[in-house]
Amino acid sequence: MSEQVKNVSSSEDRSNGRAPSSFPAVLTIAGSDCSGGAGIQADLKTFTALGCYGTSVITALTAQNTTGVQGVHGVPPEFLEKQVDSVVVDTPIKAIKTGMLFDAANVKSTVQALKRNYPKSSMPRIVIDPVSVSTSGHSLLDPTAIDIMTTELFPLAAIITPNIPEAQEFLSRTSNPYNIDSIHDMVKAAREISPGAAAVLIKGGHITATISDVDDLLHQHPDAQHNLDSIRGRNTEILKVGQEKLKQIVMDVLYQPANGLMNLFVRPYIESRSTHGTGCTLSAAIACFLARGEDVVSAVERATWYTHHGIASAFPVGKGNGPLNHMHLLTRLPTPRPTTHSPYPTTKYLIDSNPKLWNEYVEHRFTRMLGAGTLPTENFLRFMIADYHYLKYYARAYSLLAAKSHSFPAIQSALNPVTNILLEISTHRSLCAKFGVSAEEMERSSESAATLAYGCYLVDVGMRGDASLLLIALLACLLGYGEVGLYLKKEAEDPSSPVHLEGNPYREWIEDYSGEHYQGAVRSGLETIEKMAQLVPPSEGRLKEWREVWERCTWLERNFWDSAMDPKLEDRLR
Amino acid sequence: MSEQVKNVSSSEDRSNGRAPSSFPAVLTIAGSDCSGGAGIQADLKTFTALGCYGTSVITALTAQNTTGVQGVHGVPPEFLEKQVDSVVVDTPIKAIKTGMLFDAANVKSTVQALKRNYPKSSMPRIVIDPVSVSTSGHSLLDPTAIDIMTTELFPLAAIITPNIPEAQEFLSRTSNPYNIDSIHDMVKAAREISPGAAAVLIKGGHITATISDVDDLLHQHPDAQHNLDSIRGRNTEILKVGQEKLKQIVMDVLYQPANGLMNLFVRPYIESRSTHGTGCTLSAAIACFLARGEDVVSAVERATWYTHHGIASAFPVGKGNGPLNHMHLLTRLPTPRPTTHSPYPTTKYLIDSNPKLWNEYVEHRFTRMLGAGTLPTENFLRFMIADYHYLKYYARAYSLLAAKSHSFPAIQSALNPVTNILLEISTHRSLCAKFGVSAEEMERSSESAATLAYGCYLVDVGMRGDASLLLIALLACLLGYGEVGLYLKKEAEDPSSPVHLEGNPYREWIEDYSGEHYQGAVRSGLETIEKMAQLVPPSEGRLKEWREVWERCTWLERNFWDSAMDPKLEDRLR
Repeated sequence: MSEQVKNVSSSEDRSNGRAPSSFPAVLTIAGSDCSGGAGIQADLKTFTALGCYGTSVITALTAQNTTGVQGVHGVPPEFLEKQVDSVVVDTPIKAIKTGMLFDAANVKSTVQALKRNYPKSSMPRIVIDPVSVSTSGHSLLDPTAIDIMTTELFPLAAIITPNIPEAQEFLSRTSNPYNIDSIHDMVKAAREISPGAAAVLIKGGHITATISDVDDLLHQHPDAQHNLDSIRGRNTEILKVGQEKLKQIVMDVLYQPANGLMNLFVRPYIESRSTHGTGCTLSAAIACFLARGEDVVSAVERATWYTHHGIASAFPVGKGNGPLNHMHLLTRLPTPRPTTHSPYPTTKYLIDSNPKLWNEYVEHRFTRMLGAGTLPTENFLRFMIADYHYLKYYARAYSLLAAKSHSFPAIQSALNPVTNILLEISTHRSLCAKFGVSAEEMERSSESAATLAYGCYLVDVGMRGDASLLLIALLACLLGYGEVGLYLKKEAEDPSSPVHLEGNPYREWIEDYSGEHYQGAVRSGLETIEKMAQLVPPSEGRLKEWREVWERCTWLERNFWDSAMDPKLEDRLR
Repeated sequence: MSEQVKNVSSSEDRSNGRAPSSFPAVLTIAGSDCSGGAGIQADLKTFTALGCYGTSVITALTAQNTTGVQGVHGVPPEFLEKQVDSVVVDTPIKAIKTGMLFDAANVKSTVQALKRNYPKSSMPRIVIDPVSVSTSGHSLLDPTAIDIMTTELFPLAAIITPNIPEAQEFLSRTSNPYNIDSIHDMVKAAREISPGAAAVLIKGGHITATISDVDDLLHQHPDAQHNLDSIRGRNTEILKVGQEKLKQIVMDVLYQPANGLMNLFVRPYIESRSTHGTGCTLSAAIACFLARGEDVVSAVERATWYTHHGIASAFPVGKGNGPLNHMHLLTRLPTPRPTTHSPYPTTKYLIDSNPKLWNEYVEHRFTRMLGAGTLPTENFLRFMIADYHYLKYYARAYSLLAAKSHSFPAIQSALNPVTNILLEISTHRSLCAKFGVSAEEMERSSESAATLAYGCYLVDVGMRGDASLLLIALLACLLGYGEVGLYLKKEAEDPSSPVHLEGNPYREWIEDYSGEHYQGAVRSGLETIEKMAQLVPPSEGRLKEWREVWERCTWLERNFWDSAMDPKLEDRLR
């Protein structure tokens, strides 16, 4: 199996099995926490929240909840290795994190499995959360296990992330141990606990300090990079009014032996019981950002804030120390993304939001009589004259769209329809002339209330909303006529339907709207909506605005035909 | 432990440990798939994607990947029960799903743990995916295990979700078995395979059919509910142009013995290898929707579409049958949600997007000299006159906001600032009069280019964008002056700063902008931005528009002060 593995182990590998870089695959090797707040469960939630494809090798099962651990069931080392082999032989892993490894045998197995599967040059970036001492100071790993971890696992790591008790434990193994009681001690210890590791992050959650403590520290370490200005909030006094003054902070220290760089990540201390699984979550988040190709400093910075906001937005779970909220930055799209199977999901959503009204519009008595050729000339002309007036508003609304556009291509594509309308209006005139109505008569005729309502509504949408809202209003009309055209064409192909083209006085109208030229415009309208929804995905609230405009336009279209059928309906505009 | 459990088991329970209904807790009892596509990993990903708090009890570990199963390690039944106890004693579970239960002992343990922890009246809604026969027909559970599952576990379930081979297996245990080879057989079998279960969902992924097959079926079962009209796509011909005609469909059948209702869930068949874990995902998604209080029909409908779109949008993972995409409807907020620790995250994001520019504006030479009382009267007056002209645009832009508003309260709150400006303009006039400039002189004075640029920019943003974009532009000015006021006030309190109030000719100006009245307006501006961002969370693209407008306003503000300091700067607007 290991021979096979070598073929897919490189992070640059482009084999068939590769997940696209937009969802990099990440592996956790850790314990299972059935209650969902820590262990591989916290890791998988973090991977999913941060857009990575999560895989997980289990080292031990725990029966635990927010009040404590009720039982542990270790996984045999051979089975741990078997899981690692299964995962990495099949999927190119971009980053790995390790958490609780349970015992010396499983630490050894982890090292063996990693070394066997990856040559040194193509090892994925590894984050080691050296779970070995509990928050309360209780030892979770025996000394042999810690020995193997520090001597064999740490050298494989891109970063190790001990908390204070763990850093203390590693420090106790050096020639000059001391107590880590302050942020000054943390900075000192970061340089000393593991000279072999590529980067050491000491997590300072156990030590609170003040901003002036950090100032003192920076006085002694002027080269340390830090985020203190942002935490202090320079020039953001308005955001602090009514807020409690920032009294306590916590700080993580990152040290990179190779370049001697020290980074301090300061953030406000949150008084919270929702801290179960924060260490797991932080290291999982670091792995995600490393998998995305970020450098260690940026990955740690983003991961600490992800974890911080998770604590700040935690909801209560369990009776003890509950977990942080892994889902705090997730929202769900109200419509699915386009796929080859369903290329127009947003338009489909708009149409499906009121299928009855859409059907009343498409299969209107007017369109059915027009299709059957039984529509009286009088009604057709009433419609054509109304449409003549409507096209003025339509051209103006597209011009307004051009005025609201932000780039030359957007101005151009808003003005193209205006140019087309100005050209087509002569076709419109000549069609009406065939039915005995002159251009002068059309111009002199009075606008119906239905025309006025629809036309002014377009201009109002253009005035009050942004370009995308106006586009929805304009496209409802474009797409609607396209659907009517295809509906009549389909009916005309059905011998049992009264709709027909041969000898139909309105054949030209039907062929225009079902024809390739108009349907090309329909397809570009469909693509415009979907591109708009892809570029700036509408939230639930924004999609509701789109739906309201779409539905209102459909209703105005139906009224437009009502009004052409029966002048008495003119006043029944609701 | 079971006595304790009774106190938290009811779904109506309001104890301390309760997760809020916005994140209902869901439990999966199933196997672990280290490769991440199926088992508890698929379940946890689904729970997270659908906004539920996930917990997981592991029945067996597998070493597997997309090409097959390389090893299995069963979890001892006592430890399975221990995990269930740990989870449910601490967290009120809203819904449970079971997946692969591994063997007879673990099926029995599952039944025991559920019965022990929940009295019949307060059992959470349970979804049973009766994983017992593999897709290839290979048996995964021995006959005894299947016996216990059907006789003891099924009666606890809200719904069971067999695939065709499993339905076949259960049918073979009835008095009149037959082969399930068609959608007709599926409908028949749904009524017969488990008369004791509250609902049976036979998953039809193994059988493809056509729409006319479903038409035939509906002819025989006219009472069945179905979604065929939507699948057929009535009045959506425009969406089908250029698409392949829908040839094959798959169908799931839901039967509820208690009311005899039959539902058919039809969807397009997708030719795909990314089907690993679809059964796990479907049952996990049903559990999520049940946990949210939906009825069985609605939960199944939404879950089938979640799974369908997951297959349709799958990305390649592994060399065999890869998993579906669990993250297809997730997006990430570009800024965190407000918490008590950080109530104005969106405003903070806007300010932090260009802290240098913001600082140049707030701590401008103009404001510092004004604070120190050393600003020549001439420059102050130049500013005041420019501000006088600017306020006309500002009042017009707020009026435009009113014109773009959609409700009476919104119109009111847009017009309030206009009323205030019209009142305050007299204070403005009297302050200038003190410095020897009359109202007539102010009115006669010419507008500077800096004023024109800023004023017209506000009107342009109002013309091209929606109400929220205009609000961002208007609030940048409101909040900026608030920050300048607080900056000067803070400096004045620092004895080492040249800024002071006593004897400062501009004291009134400083006290106005740092005073309670103006700061009250600032706070309401802050809340407006955050409410706007909460109500319709801006996507990355929309937030980028906000940030551009905010930054442009900050830049225009800085130029405004540049121009007051030095008339030669007038032309240096960039």
